[in-house]
Amino acid sequence: MGIEGLAERLAEGVVVGDPGVVASYSRDQTFVVPGEALGVVLARSTEDVAVTLAWADENRVPVVPRGAGTGLAGGATATDGSVVLSLARMNAIRELNTADQYAVVEPGVINADLDRAARAHGLMYAPDPSSHEISTLGGNLATNAGGLRCVKYGVTRESVLGLEVVLAGGKVINTGGRTVKGVTGYDLTGLFVGSEGTLGVITGATLRLRPAPSAEPVTVAGTFPSMVAAGEAVAAVVAAGIEPSLLELVDRATLLAIDDWKNIGVEDDTAAMLIGQVDVAEPREPAARMAALFEAAGATAVAVSEDRAESDELLGIRRMAYHASERLGHCLVEDVCVPRSKVPEMIARIEKAASGHDVTVLTVAHAGDGNLHPLFVFDRGESEVPAPVWAAADEIFQGALDLGGTLTGEHGVGVLKRRWLGLELGDDRLAVQHAIKAALDPNGILNPGKAI
Amino acid sequence: MGIEGLAERLAEGVVVGDPGVVASYSRDQTFVVPGEALGVVLARSTEDVAVTLAWADENRVPVVPRGAGTGLAGGATATDGSVVLSLARMNAIRELNTADQYAVVEPGVINADLDRAARAHGLMYAPDPSSHEISTLGGNLATNAGGLRCVKYGVTRESVLGLEVVLAGGKVINTGGRTVKGVTGYDLTGLFVGSEGTLGVITGATLRLRPAPSAEPVTVAGTFPSMVAAGEAVAAVVAAGIEPSLLELVDRATLLAIDDWKNIGVEDDTAAMLIGQVDVAEPREPAARMAALFEAAGATAVAVSEDRAESDELLGIRRMAYHASERLGHCLVEDVCVPRSKVPEMIARIEKAASGHDVTVLTVAHAGDGNLHPLFVFDRGESEVPAPVWAAADEIFQGALDLGGTLTGEHGVGVLKRRWLGLELGDDRLAVQHAIKAALDPNGILNPGKAI
Repeated sequence: MGIEGLAERLAEGVVVGDPGVVASYSRDQTFVVPGEALGVVLARSTEDVAVTLAWADENRVPVVPRGAGTGLAGGATATDGSVVLSLARMNAIRELNTADQYAVVEPGVINADLDRAARAHGLMYAPDPSSHEISTLGGNLATNAGGLRCVKYGVTRESVLGLEVVLAGGKVINTGGRTVKGVTGYDLTGLFVGSEGTLGVITGATLRLRPAPSAEPVTVAGTFPSMVAAGEAVAAVVAAGIEPSLLELVDRATLLAIDDWKNIGVEDDTAAMLIGQVDVAEPREPAARMAALFEAAGATAVAVSEDRAESDELLGIRRMAYHASERLGHCLVEDVCVPRSKVPEMIARIEKAASGHDVTVLTVAHAGDGNLHPLFVFDRGESEVPAPVWAAADEIFQGALDLGGTLTGEHGVGVLKRRWLGLELGDDRLAVQHAIKAALDPNGILNPGKAI
Repeated sequence: MGIEGLAERLAEGVVVGDPGVVASYSRDQTFVVPGEALGVVLARSTEDVAVTLAWADENRVPVVPRGAGTGLAGGATATDGSVVLSLARMNAIRELNTADQYAVVEPGVINADLDRAARAHGLMYAPDPSSHEISTLGGNLATNAGGLRCVKYGVTRESVLGLEVVLAGGKVINTGGRTVKGVTGYDLTGLFVGSEGTLGVITGATLRLRPAPSAEPVTVAGTFPSMVAAGEAVAAVVAAGIEPSLLELVDRATLLAIDDWKNIGVEDDTAAMLIGQVDVAEPREPAARMAALFEAAGATAVAVSEDRAESDELLGIRRMAYHASERLGHCLVEDVCVPRSKVPEMIARIEKAASGHDVTVLTVAHAGDGNLHPLFVFDRGESEVPAPVWAAADEIFQGALDLGGTLTGEHGVGVLKRRWLGLELGDDRLAVQHAIKAALDPNGILNPGKAI
């Protein structure tokens, strides 16, 4: 099967077969070796997507949708004989409604671009995955991406009012609407969000905007002599009802990696750093309470900053984590999530798994959500993730499930986590997912082999 | 088909065939004339539900699940030859986890009972439909119920972490988990919530609790000379980022009905009343800002109350609306939802439809959400909803859709709104819903004729 038939149905330049271009659109940020795709569709419109899916369905050609390729689970990895469908060129903000606080966007809009457009009107787009400067909203929707602020504002799903979706056969439907409430029919919006392009291709979204904080947020950073102490601080903040707009944990290994790069200075007795932020109208009082709770939990040093530059510097430590780790070698980023009170125990299990299999692991966490990112570092000479890393990951996944948690809090299943899926979901729950997949994509053309 | 076969599989007393009892379990709070059910199952356990669904699936007997029967769309109305499955006896709070702020409940727990249990630990259960003192959490989940507080805390879905669901054939699955984030597999939790018992029967739920407000909420009530002025006040409050924990609108007709009952006193120039509440840690300042915005929008009188008794009195006006209307005759309560800025225009359309068809309509609204409840009053002598009322409702639904809104914000489709479903969803979107229904309930035994 070639893609000439598809190229005939689309404008010139929309379908690209050049092997170099195809290869560059076949990977995301993981170490999954892609298959050989037939070509890439650089869609410019919903109509282009509809034509592509109709052709693919007729000809039983797998379609791999993608945004910017920043995924961390292999969800956008090309498979053999597939067509890669890039939504990156569909990057218009179709409407920004300030009175009703929503935006209608195309899937290729960069997350931070929407946030900036909203802030020009005193609004914000809350979901902020770490990749927000480079990832697309379509990719965020496909994975139900989280981020730092979701401890207060919820994950991507909670900012989606409605979607425009192209179904496997090429039909276009709308889900949800423009209202903040609505229960007409089943929640298709929630079903498509996080489905990693396996049920339909999102070509438009109505996203909820919120008033931007009226005051400069206050940042509180503390260093702790043990993970348990940091975990207690997290629990105390949550219990006190402070509602931080972010609450991030960085472990000693990560701090040392950052120190090695940027000389931030790490004391001998520092096991972890906790960085919180409060963005309410009057943030000083709750920030002071948070600082006091850090101290009560045993923090060795606490800094409170009302100044944007200083706040950015404190938060920068957290944001540098991934790049600092990459200086050490190749990285596999994991994404377990546990009930918040289990964070210290989960960290203990991560450390045990790492030392048991003699692998290097650095951990950062969206601690207020119980969402941990153990980051495995391995030799740059390796072309695949080494077996001991998978063995350690296996132990960590099992540990997360033992503690009432989940394999993935915000990155998605992609191809990387499919082997553990049955462990979490069990046969009957997985069967329901496959029944839904078969109902919506009977010929199995939509991103086969991913998500479920 | 009789129910003897089912009775044999369950303990004595679980299956009830007495016609009087069956009749009392065959209606909800609407005027839908029920069919003749075979009997009622008073389930005590997930196992009872599983046995019932397995038997019903084998024998192709429709099952109509129900909680307390407080529904306003006919979703729990018995159909001919069905078995009514009551979950009301399954009313245990299985776990209340204060550290991780969730509760594991059975479906028969009354909404307000969970909230009270949570408040004993400084927590709250946020979703509060007006029926919260009598409706069950299972019914709330089946309809994705809203309430007053969802302007700040979201609808029921946003407080659900996971579910236990019995599928059509009797298999039991769990969805979601105990974490606040998780993207393993499709969002089945969201799919079952709001599906009105047509995809599975919810036998357990893990619900998110939140810290209860640390301070006494402050209530602001204002009277307005026009709906437009009240609508402008709502828009101003939302735009200012005040985040009220409720923002309710009561129209003049409703105020007069309440006055007729309780002598609250309604000035000649009062077209509407707006009642807002702020429940943050330091509520005085935002409440004062809200009061100022009410005044700036043209309020003729504004009361601010920090006192619980006085606050309850102000809110009581809103809570009396339904009962005050019932004194005037039978009521049909509608539930349209529009983008917030369209509330004044929607109210104008409601008034036009009512006068055009010469029917009495009273309107209250969760104004901060754009969710309006036009309440049609008709003669107590009628045994069915009169044709002019349906004609007016038809105009109102069409108006809501014209304004970018939806048929139902929080009550569900049930049987009452099915005739308008195609108007909102269109054929292709409805076809997706039916495909999902067929995948999960191939024999069509689960609450047939409802929701989609």
